[in-house]
Amino acid sequence: MGPGPSRVPNRVLRALSAPTIGHLDPQFVELLDDTCLKLRQVFRTENPLTFPVSATGMAGMECVVSNLLEAGDQAIVCVNGLFGGRMVEVMERHGIVVHRLDAKWGSSFTEDEVADVVHRHPRAKALAMVHAETSTGAHQPLAAISKMLHEEGMLFIVDAVTSLGGHPVEVDEWHIDAVYSATQKCLSCPPGLAPVSFSPAAVEVIERRKRPVDNWYFDVGMLKNYYEGRSTRAYHHTPPVNMIFALNEALAIILEEGLEARFERHAHMHKRLRAGLEEIGLEYVPDQSLHSMNCVWIPEGVDDAKVRSRMLDTYGIEIGGGLAEMAGKVWRIGLMGHSATQANVDLVLAALVDCLE
Amino acid sequence: MGPGPSRVPNRVLRALSAPTIGHLDPQFVELLDDTCLKLRQVFRTENPLTFPVSATGMAGMECVVSNLLEAGDQAIVCVNGLFGGRMVEVMERHGIVVHRLDAKWGSSFTEDEVADVVHRHPRAKALAMVHAETSTGAHQPLAAISKMLHEEGMLFIVDAVTSLGGHPVEVDEWHIDAVYSATQKCLSCPPGLAPVSFSPAAVEVIERRKRPVDNWYFDVGMLKNYYEGRSTRAYHHTPPVNMIFALNEALAIILEEGLEARFERHAHMHKRLRAGLEEIGLEYVPDQSLHSMNCVWIPEGVDDAKVRSRMLDTYGIEIGGGLAEMAGKVWRIGLMGHSATQANVDLVLAALVDCLE
Repeated sequence: MGPGPSRVPNRVLRALSAPTIGHLDPQFVELLDDTCLKLRQVFRTENPLTFPVSATGMAGMECVVSNLLEAGDQAIVCVNGLFGGRMVEVMERHGIVVHRLDAKWGSSFTEDEVADVVHRHPRAKALAMVHAETSTGAHQPLAAISKMLHEEGMLFIVDAVTSLGGHPVEVDEWHIDAVYSATQKCLSCPPGLAPVSFSPAAVEVIERRKRPVDNWYFDVGMLKNYYEGRSTRAYHHTPPVNMIFALNEALAIILEEGLEARFERHAHMHKRLRAGLEEIGLEYVPDQSLHSMNCVWIPEGVDDAKVRSRMLDTYGIEIGGGLAEMAGKVWRIGLMGHSATQANVDLVLAALVDCLE
Repeated sequence: MGPGPSRVPNRVLRALSAPTIGHLDPQFVELLDDTCLKLRQVFRTENPLTFPVSATGMAGMECVVSNLLEAGDQAIVCVNGLFGGRMVEVMERHGIVVHRLDAKWGSSFTEDEVADVVHRHPRAKALAMVHAETSTGAHQPLAAISKMLHEEGMLFIVDAVTSLGGHPVEVDEWHIDAVYSATQKCLSCPPGLAPVSFSPAAVEVIERRKRPVDNWYFDVGMLKNYYEGRSTRAYHHTPPVNMIFALNEALAIILEEGLEARFERHAHMHKRLRAGLEEIGLEYVPDQSLHSMNCVWIPEGVDDAKVRSRMLDTYGIEIGGGLAEMAGKVWRIGLMGHSATQANVDLVLAALVDCLE
């Protein structure tokens, strides 16, 4: 019940361990196509270019950034936690000129703040935001901001690592141009793949690049031929076959439950956890909390490491510590996908009461 | 029995499907350290910087190239098949000035040819070669070339994707500076990780770079803090936890068999297959064949696709077709790791005799 990897259902583990088959085997090709179709449903998009990058979540960020932007481009990054800061680092690696909009860790951005930075940097090609900041639990509303960016003609990049499968991520309705996520959070699949989706407008921008993408493995132009190629599928790399088995099954479970029912379950479990945490005197960090990631201040005088290792040793429960400037100051309790159950909520509360004594 | 993914032993599939644990869980940290130690044994190196890149084989190539070299550097690439060509493409993405040494697909390079190109380009920082060319089955001897490069003070980059675990890869004895492989060939693990190793000399070169590595995900400077950090392990990305379970088990199986015994088994099965193939009139392509990859010309008048789909449908055996300029002209029969058994050799021969009728 930490910040991920979250618990993986047995069905997904069984799918993961099916005998490995060739990546050119017709059976696998069909399964990969089906996985991409299911991803579109979960991202709520018709984007043809929706697929799992063959690496972990941070690779999704690198893939999106390095394809959509090129050296010399300007971009705005909204930073209110570790992963916003990561986006700045990754962009700078690719020679992108970054305009930062900083906010206190744990806060969210208002539409006005974003409108202001957009007007100050009209030549920025894209604005990037973290929908679900795993380091603080902040939940950033996107709909209004996205509408405004769309009207300004600015591309919108979204980090949905900790929201996809737990909170609505409306790629089409919100006009998101490029979004990335990871399998080990609310999709309840082991880490190893980074689902991404690019809008047709984003694909056009990529096709009009002045220079080729500055890396080969994440080059969407080539990956597009592979993932959309169907019969003419061009060999690019060998995808992680068994991880695709697992992701397909994880997505099947999500679609069986239904996205709305799943979001409702996350909301309900978050409310129950929040009520319980506040009852024992723990205070939430973010001004708008994610359901999937609950970040609370550690009460004064309490030994962070001691409590967490007692939780792990006595209860077999992992909760997360703070990252960077929040190290030692917060705990992060995940309610992600398969883990967001009443039994888990009640157990983590009971365990916390015991370990805080 | 194609060019990989090869068959994965049940022990590895069972390890793969163990419940996912947190990547910061002490149990996982210990397992990751142990996996890196086992990789050193298989690479036959003491290099502290030996770890599995969290992505598939081609990412190993990109990681090595983009860290060891930087834009404006000169490098020599020996191209005698598809993967040598890939190395040129990847280097060019990173702005490296490439001097190609081309040879006929299926041939190997002599020491004299390499010495000649080295003397023509004394300012090249590195020379790259494919040890085991998966597209043609060519087996490139490395020991003498490596010694020569070492004396010239030129870095040596080696692609060992299809040799590691099937043929000796003597990283220390041969003074290889950077080597990458993949899990889905002779290591008999599903695809999803790219084992790499960097010599201390390579690490020094990386530390003295003029500019930071032009990508974030594969930045060895940061990965070094993660994989060598032990107690201070700095969070970089979430590694594919279950794939690490699988790789650890696959390496354990290899070390239980013993590297010498494993190489001997591959050699023996290759001889048996070769004798059988030549008996039915099939001719090998490469001048020096790998044991793990057997590439033969398709006899005139034989329908490539028909034979391969009959093999798959009737016998459940996958053999590989040709890539690029060899498409439709060759078959590629893998004898990799767990698949290199007498039963498989005799079955593939029987099946070929039947399907060629």
